[in-house]
Amino acid sequence: MPRFDAQQLLHFGQSVLTAAGASPEIAADTAKYLLEGDLLGYSTHGYKRLYFNAKLLAEGQARGEGDISVLKQRAAVASWDANFLPGPFVAAKAVRQACDMARDAGTATIVVRRAQHVASLAAYLQLATEQGLLISLLCSTPAQASVAPFGGKAAVFSPNPFAIGVPTSDKPLLLDMSFSMTAAGKIRQYWERQQPLPWQAIVRADGQLSSDPADYIEGEGAAILPLGGTELGYKGYGLCLMSEIWTMSLSNYGRLDGASDGESNALFVQVLDPSAFGETADFLRVTDDLVARCKACPPLHSDSPVRIPGERALAKRAYQLQQGVKLDDATWGRLQRAAQRFSVTPPTVRDD
Amino acid sequence: MPRFDAQQLLHFGQSVLTAAGASPEIAADTAKYLLEGDLLGYSTHGYKRLYFNAKLLAEGQARGEGDISVLKQRAAVASWDANFLPGPFVAAKAVRQACDMARDAGTATIVVRRAQHVASLAAYLQLATEQGLLISLLCSTPAQASVAPFGGKAAVFSPNPFAIGVPTSDKPLLLDMSFSMTAAGKIRQYWERQQPLPWQAIVRADGQLSSDPADYIEGEGAAILPLGGTELGYKGYGLCLMSEIWTMSLSNYGRLDGASDGESNALFVQVLDPSAFGETADFLRVTDDLVARCKACPPLHSDSPVRIPGERALAKRAYQLQQGVKLDDATWGRLQRAAQRFSVTPPTVRDD
Repeated sequence: MPRFDAQQLLHFGQSVLTAAGASPEIAADTAKYLLEGDLLGYSTHGYKRLYFNAKLLAEGQARGEGDISVLKQRAAVASWDANFLPGPFVAAKAVRQACDMARDAGTATIVVRRAQHVASLAAYLQLATEQGLLISLLCSTPAQASVAPFGGKAAVFSPNPFAIGVPTSDKPLLLDMSFSMTAAGKIRQYWERQQPLPWQAIVRADGQLSSDPADYIEGEGAAILPLGGTELGYKGYGLCLMSEIWTMSLSNYGRLDGASDGESNALFVQVLDPSAFGETADFLRVTDDLVARCKACPPLHSDSPVRIPGERALAKRAYQLQQGVKLDDATWGRLQRAAQRFSVTPPTVRDD
Repeated sequence: MPRFDAQQLLHFGQSVLTAAGASPEIAADTAKYLLEGDLLGYSTHGYKRLYFNAKLLAEGQARGEGDISVLKQRAAVASWDANFLPGPFVAAKAVRQACDMARDAGTATIVVRRAQHVASLAAYLQLATEQGLLISLLCSTPAQASVAPFGGKAAVFSPNPFAIGVPTSDKPLLLDMSFSMTAAGKIRQYWERQQPLPWQAIVRADGQLSSDPADYIEGEGAAILPLGGTELGYKGYGLCLMSEIWTMSLSNYGRLDGASDGESNALFVQVLDPSAFGETADFLRVTDDLVARCKACPPLHSDSPVRIPGERALAKRAYQLQQGVKLDDATWGRLQRAAQRFSVTPPTVRDD
């Protein structure tokens, strides 16, 4: 896979997005948080999306400038209408704002309707953890349905991601996951490689379970099973319900409202300030102890110690900042197309 | 199984707890929310625990009177030390208080350290949903370890329950689940019936997976796998970490602090007021639509339509209030022992 200098990728992304119609501020944050996805290893939600995001701007489905509308605002809560501004810009702004509010009020919850696709939730977590704050993020897509409820064989829910960030005395704990047995992006990766999924995460319209990605990508009416599958899927189903209620219901942006809004998201941002509940030193002491207990747990397989969520992503980030960001050939192809369409010099492949 | 009149059970419970040393207010709420667990069908966390709770009071491990200490308080956040007051009393009080705060601030988060065992989280949800409020609850037990981290073969986490309650135009959505593949109470039920678990939810100290409840109940060092099991267990593991950080870390009551506190809990209560984020009518419209989509989803098995969380529990509650509360023989035996020890007339078995 070709490797690229992170700084050069960032400038390239900004240039593409600016050429597509984004203001400098919006282009900067959108490129930054898309790239942050790649740096952390969430390559399905990184620069793979840059060309698509630029097209949305150029074709008017995403707004390149203008303000977010604040619909409601109190000390600890707010509701925004992003009116199709680019998701990475909106999400980072909401997280920063929630951190500022939580510093005063002890906690802050912001819900956002009509943000364009926010990409990787993991990308925004460190904005909070670097300030010693706890963060949780939920995101859903009113126009999408890909995950079935427990006991059902058709899609109802979008592939709603959930992410948390926790400060510790050492590196932050960063978790980004879905409430389903896999993500649509992962199924597509297996499909492109012509490999079966490692487990039966798909239910076909005829009710048969399947690990064949073609059943989902090419078939009609297949759905992804909720986390827990056919046995414990009522848990994943419950978490999917929570996700859509906490995002869509609270922001008043449901499946009827957003039916033709493509990948536009409803977002829930919550920040908690540990110092509002107790002593920061004690918060860190209890958290560090829990992390240490997980690390000290005897592993199921002697060569695979128990890992802390975010550990591998942060190591990958540090490595790629130094050694270059790996992008797969499909993504590199899209970046070249973007360079051509928006008349921007493409980044250079590193050959060191 | 014997059946009892709900009202008579409630008075019996209050009498036992009062005789064991609880104030009338504390006895009333403790009996009420334990019974609420039975009514909703969470019989492992209902009157099965009454005798044990009374013993904790009589023997001084739970306090029968006195106040909760408010450690921190702002408009939208609070931190309490319950100093071993009975959990059902403390949890109900925290939920009521959080609802009051959320009506003003739009949201409220209360963390509680050192509540005695709070029993069934589901029991407290309707306190919020009846007011049109959204609620989420997390609970953990610093002195207990029964769930393994992903990739580990020893217990680190307590069997942390998670619950949410959501108002709709019809009945509320009520969810109460754990982030593990099963609960210790359920393993005990299978063990008592000498039946295998329906799936391999146990990892033995030697790293072998097992569905034999004896491996957990009688064996040394076995643990329950996190939700997602050996394939997707990093998700359940991440949710367990969240649970303990949001409860223990925020309340500064970790595994080192509470090591000898038995079943004493750390509790996280959060309430969100939909009207602080948008229009209540729109919140209900979006939520009702989502519920309707789940119900309309074609079922995997034609005789089992997709269910809404809480649907069955609420039907059971209504039925038992009318037809009597079913308690298993073991629980009935414990109630008789409690009656004897605390010199209270036992409830009468219904024979209609």
